[in-house]
Amino acid sequence: MLPFAEAFFMSSHLPSSQSPRIVILGAGFAGLRLARKLANKPVQVVLIDKNNFHQFQPLFYQVATAGLAPSSIAFPIRKVFHKAHNVHFRVAEVDRIDTLSNSIHTSIGSISYDKLVIATGADTNYFNNKQIEAHALPMKSVQESLYLRNRILECMEAALVADSDEERAALMNVVVVGGGPTGTEVSGALAEMRSFVLPKDYPELDFDTMEIHLIEASPRLLGPMSKDASKRSEDFLRSMGVKVEVNTLVESYDGHTVTTKDGRTFITNSLIWAAGIKGNVLEGIPEELIIANGRVKVDSTNKMLGSDNVFVIGDVAIMEEGNFTKGHPQVAQVAIQQADQLYVNLLSQLKGKKMKPFHYKDLGSMATIGRNKAVVDLPYIKFQGFVAWVFWLFIHLMSILGVKNKFFIFLEWTVNYFTYDQSLRLVIKQKPRDGEASVK
Amino acid sequence: MLPFAEAFFMSSHLPSSQSPRIVILGAGFAGLRLARKLANKPVQVVLIDKNNFHQFQPLFYQVATAGLAPSSIAFPIRKVFHKAHNVHFRVAEVDRIDTLSNSIHTSIGSISYDKLVIATGADTNYFNNKQIEAHALPMKSVQESLYLRNRILECMEAALVADSDEERAALMNVVVVGGGPTGTEVSGALAEMRSFVLPKDYPELDFDTMEIHLIEASPRLLGPMSKDASKRSEDFLRSMGVKVEVNTLVESYDGHTVTTKDGRTFITNSLIWAAGIKGNVLEGIPEELIIANGRVKVDSTNKMLGSDNVFVIGDVAIMEEGNFTKGHPQVAQVAIQQADQLYVNLLSQLKGKKMKPFHYKDLGSMATIGRNKAVVDLPYIKFQGFVAWVFWLFIHLMSILGVKNKFFIFLEWTVNYFTYDQSLRLVIKQKPRDGEASVK
Repeated sequence: MLPFAEAFFMSSHLPSSQSPRIVILGAGFAGLRLARKLANKPVQVVLIDKNNFHQFQPLFYQVATAGLAPSSIAFPIRKVFHKAHNVHFRVAEVDRIDTLSNSIHTSIGSISYDKLVIATGADTNYFNNKQIEAHALPMKSVQESLYLRNRILECMEAALVADSDEERAALMNVVVVGGGPTGTEVSGALAEMRSFVLPKDYPELDFDTMEIHLIEASPRLLGPMSKDASKRSEDFLRSMGVKVEVNTLVESYDGHTVTTKDGRTFITNSLIWAAGIKGNVLEGIPEELIIANGRVKVDSTNKMLGSDNVFVIGDVAIMEEGNFTKGHPQVAQVAIQQADQLYVNLLSQLKGKKMKPFHYKDLGSMATIGRNKAVVDLPYIKFQGFVAWVFWLFIHLMSILGVKNKFFIFLEWTVNYFTYDQSLRLVIKQKPRDGEASVK
Repeated sequence: MLPFAEAFFMSSHLPSSQSPRIVILGAGFAGLRLARKLANKPVQVVLIDKNNFHQFQPLFYQVATAGLAPSSIAFPIRKVFHKAHNVHFRVAEVDRIDTLSNSIHTSIGSISYDKLVIATGADTNYFNNKQIEAHALPMKSVQESLYLRNRILECMEAALVADSDEERAALMNVVVVGGGPTGTEVSGALAEMRSFVLPKDYPELDFDTMEIHLIEASPRLLGPMSKDASKRSEDFLRSMGVKVEVNTLVESYDGHTVTTKDGRTFITNSLIWAAGIKGNVLEGIPEELIIANGRVKVDSTNKMLGSDNVFVIGDVAIMEEGNFTKGHPQVAQVAIQQADQLYVNLLSQLKGKKMKPFHYKDLGSMATIGRNKAVVDLPYIKFQGFVAWVFWLFIHLMSILGVKNKFFIFLEWTVNYFTYDQSLRLVIKQKPRDGEASVK
């Protein structure tokens, strides 16, 4: 370790340790998994995230549509490591990495590393369309999902006092762009709100006039899934009154009018953008390793090309492997499996043993469209409908962190199922205060 | 009704009705109670609040100390009135009232009334100390309670990387000003966080050095309660390590140093201000009816003095009655009982009958300091400790709106009781977005 890295080391207020230090950036599926595996192993782990909680992304859409409380799908990271004294968690923003001095520079000072694992995930991709970015509603964090919920409810309140039918329609309509799992699931959940919840809350509004559009650029929804899954999910959505537009590319949105490439327009104050993601890259990663959508090239062991001690896992990594010539799908399963493999490899490397290449094992994929309506593709069987929906519920419940979260989500779902009435329709906004200072 | 009031009527998008219109401002304990009583009665009710949810104030401190989710103590107002088609709820800020034209002016336009009920409650009183207002943390809404939670957790994160012992102490210490129920309860809850939760989350910090001070200007805590209750709650707090300072007046706070009138200083980045409240008065209420702490003078039927059709109930009203020569205590019980009496009187007035004066029936008061530690004063019996604590839990659970909320709070409390570990330590902040427009 270089002498000035030692100075950084001091400034980061980390306890000194004889064990090699592994710094993990990001506590999503990949980073958290790796840190948990490394708990109480002969390494010092520094886990860094900008939030003090892990987020369960697959259920963001239920927070956005008032079905679940944010606390049900966000889990305090410190709680995970109560019994792991070699894991040090820090809330910080990472400014850049410096592979020459083996250190990272963050909002709480610099930290040196022996090995660095970049697991920063991905964020919404607007494909450089600044106008859409300024007006669209993303759904890639608990905060954004809450914002979306508030926005939809505020639009309904505003619709009550709208001055014209046009204004009211714009406030009530929702356009969802992107027919992947996120777009499909949120469209379905919105359709259920329109059927079961909103008419009871707003008897003065006519919800037969409320339009929900789902716009997808490719020829079918849920592109990476089977044709059966695509077909059935589109059928489900249409039966629930969602207007599905495939082969349609959104070109612009000014906060009021959505214009497509073939010249059609849709009027809405609420455009949900779920049309793409891009990796969260950091300054200091060599430019030539970053591909167009922000993914960083790694070798078969998730090592960043040209580096010895920097690894990249999860959504932000791109690895060529067998049939995955354009990288693996950016899903939780890949992130988790890469974390598991890297855990084994890091321990091997420390022992001077050879690392083993990563092989993705596709366990299948699924999406839920509404009550009793889901689609599931498993390696040897594909099914849709009620059984798929129960399967979806079970898998998601089992995947979420913490016994208490599982239990509370199970209860919420059970209550919602029988009452047809999610009760979390709260617009809770924290206003910035006058004269607010930082905590320091 | 005046012609231009009729025009306002149109602009408010309310359905026309042959029934007299009662406009209620505020959906706290008083306003919501009255609106619920008037459901499906031969009147048109317009209920206005700036939030779309009712807040259960007695449990704010549990949100602030990560024991309950905001959604557990906030209840969507529209859900209350699903079956009450004569009640129209609107989210709006009220700018002023105009008693000459019988109308109110709001952020969503003007609304005329036949009878107006002001139930706007009370907010934090800083007694014109702008410096304290700029730096102190209030706890008079769900939003403020959430902000307080975030703030305390952020201070702990910052303490981990503090540059000096002084800085760390300022970040960890908390000073609570005001020994009423709010200040007493939050001090106790903070002491329990310090004992049971924070050391597990932050093993790198030494919580033996964390100081919690509760400062009260009068000679005893819980002034309006019995001496037994005051004594025992102070004993409870001291046994939990809270430093109670009575007969102490806070004079200034600059965000770092608290200075008292007798010249003592306390160092903290977190000062919780629960030292007083003031009524939320509206422009248009005659100045001479408003007393120093923002309460509005009413007669024995809660009618605003000098008016025929404007009523004021709850915390914002002040009525002389029997022994209550300086008004009733500003508590939920008074608000609820005034709403009940006004309900009877409004119906009487509509039938041309005489209204009856309000008489407050004190059902008792209570406060909880920690696990198994509460104080209860009932009219004929006073008790403290475990039985009081169970009684407190039971009463609060029964008072909260909604079966589901009751059930979820009961579960949270049960889990927290056995695990000694609230798991809601999430810092979820909604950042304002670039280019954000209003919903219109």
